[in-house]
Amino acid sequence: MTPFSTSDTRDAATLRSRVQALFDRSGLMLHLGAHLGDVAPGRVHVNLPFSPALTQHLGLFHAGATASIADAAGGFAAYTQAPENCTVLSVEFKINLLAPAQGESLEAIGQVIRAGRTLTIVQVDVFALKAGEKTPVALMQQTIMNVPDRA
Amino acid sequence: MTPFSTSDTRDAATLRSRVQALFDRSGLMLHLGAHLGDVAPGRVHVNLPFSPALTQHLGLFHAGATASIADAAGGFAAYTQAPENCTVLSVEFKINLLAPAQGESLEAIGQVIRAGRTLTIVQVDVFALKAGEKTPVALMQQTIMNVPDRA
Amino acid sequence: MTPFSTSDTRDAATLRSRVQALFDRSGLMLHLGAHLGDVAPGRVHVNLPFSPALTQHLGLFHAGATASIADAAGGFAAYTQAPENCTVLSVEFKINLLAPAQGESLEAIGQVIRAGRTLTIVQVDVFALKAGEKTPVALMQQTIMNVPDRA
Amino acid sequence: MTPFSTSDTRDAATLRSRVQALFDRSGLMLHLGAHLGDVAPGRVHVNLPFSPALTQHLGLFHAGATASIADAAGGFAAYTQAPENCTVLSVEFKINLLAPAQGESLEAIGQVIRAGRTLTIVQVDVFALKAGEKTPVALMQQTIMNVPDRA
Repeated sequence: MTPFSTSDTRDAATLRSRVQALFDRSGLMLHLGAHLGDVAPGRVHVNLPFSPALTQHLGLFHAGATASIADAAGGFAAYTQAPENCTVLSVEFKINLLAPAQGESLEAIGQVIRAGRTLTIVQVDVFALKAGEKTPVALMQQTIMNVPDRA
Repeated sequence: MTPFSTSDTRDAATLRSRVQALFDRSGLMLHLGAHLGDVAPGRVHVNLPFSPALTQHLGLFHAGATASIADAAGGFAAYTQAPENCTVLSVEFKINLLAPAQGESLEAIGQVIRAGRTLTIVQVDVFALKAGEKTPVALMQQTIMNVPDRA
Repeated sequence: MTPFSTSDTRDAATLRSRVQALFDRSGLMLHLGAHLGDVAPGRVHVNLPFSPALTQHLGLFHAGATASIADAAGGFAAYTQAPENCTVLSVEFKINLLAPAQGESLEAIGQVIRAGRTLTIVQVDVFALKAGEKTPVALMQQTIMNVPDRA
Repeated sequence: MTPFSTSDTRDAATLRSRVQALFDRSGLMLHLGAHLGDVAPGRVHVNLPFSPALTQHLGLFHAGATASIADAAGGFAAYTQAPENCTVLSVEFKINLLAPAQGESLEAIGQVIRAGRTLTIVQVDVFALKAGEKTPVALMQQTIMNVPDRA
């Protein structure tokens, strides 16, 4: 691999700002208190600080909160590899809850497994961060569809 | 089927209040603005009025919001058939988004398919309600685990 | 509904023969000993008589055998509603094994939930038939893609 | 890590022979022509040479064949970490078909993500081998249950 050029840096900034724009239009992400982490081609991080507003009946992060940022991270990861003038929609996803989701925050990392013309397959890992430890708490497989962006 | 007896009515009220107690301890449900609908043995409804705080980048209900109430409705449905002194945890779920989720509200209906000693399999239908029309927008299959309630 | 007309009967026969042609080109279905059951628009049955060649280590039908006929029944159901000149491919599926799959045979019933232009969502129920009893043993959600038929 | 000791070698042989015994009792694996590849704690490979008896209507490996060896590889991987006197059953799995499955053979690699007391979560990658190239063709997430071995 060649070292980072000015042009790569500019592209990276453009990519991030495109994803950030999508993120900022996602009412749910803002309402949950999530924020966008690293953005790279085919890989996007979404972080979610703990709040009692995100819990299930035992005080853990609700599976719905975990799934929400996982779906978002996966969709954004697919978006970084979608054709120009396309936006993305979730077709389906499946999530396994691996361990109790508790700690200061969750981090969802979406990674494109295969980007097709119409469909993109994404895998998302979710980790809980607690007292400096990072524990895997969920694993998602997701199918994303590219659709023409009418906006 | 025999007609409803006083005892059935009392049992129905008890069941509802047990599920309502779980619901009221679910910070995420309150934060999203969801509320508990019908409760019957093996079947629970959760409703979610539209709000811009629940959207994805195109202004539709975010798949994470849809999945959150589906997961909740399914978990509560399993809970109605869990052994005494047990609570429930989501092991995994898979959701297909069938159509754009838009309208005045969503309704998730969780229905137990098979209740085992340890695991319960649930199916959840989610409908969008818009101008008097009810459209299926999502379908979930979910695995729930009974765990001892230490509370 | 109006009674069956000659034209409906002819259409039904055409539909069946189109699905049967697909089935007969499916080497795996023949190798497993499966056969095509009822065929209707959006709904197809596939049957699988028991054989020791279909088992897992405990002598039950292997989850792979169950999934194979479920995937086939679902794909054929989608095919009955695919556009002309299209064939179908499985994008993904998720299956819950509900109960030990044992008996004289399995029956998979695929039913289209939503047929889109590109993607079709199907639900498949699998039953075991044993001594005259029919027990649900698996439940599948499946995503099928219409692709141009180059054959 | 310390170098391999005599005892590790013996343990490795024991582990393999335990998995091989399970494999040899799986009628479906033998009927499909699959064979057991590498076996390590938490990771098992299953190979499947191509045959017209394994195809769908376009001549590709049938998704059912792909799923069958993926389910087997995942179940065996879980088995390597199951408690003594336990055997394993598939609770559910979800598989994405990433690319047309064609070539001389398929290789499924099951890898334990989290081994719990009751449930084990496994991820399975399936590759097609064609003219010396290895292409990912499927990705599975699977939930396995430990059950007392009455055999």
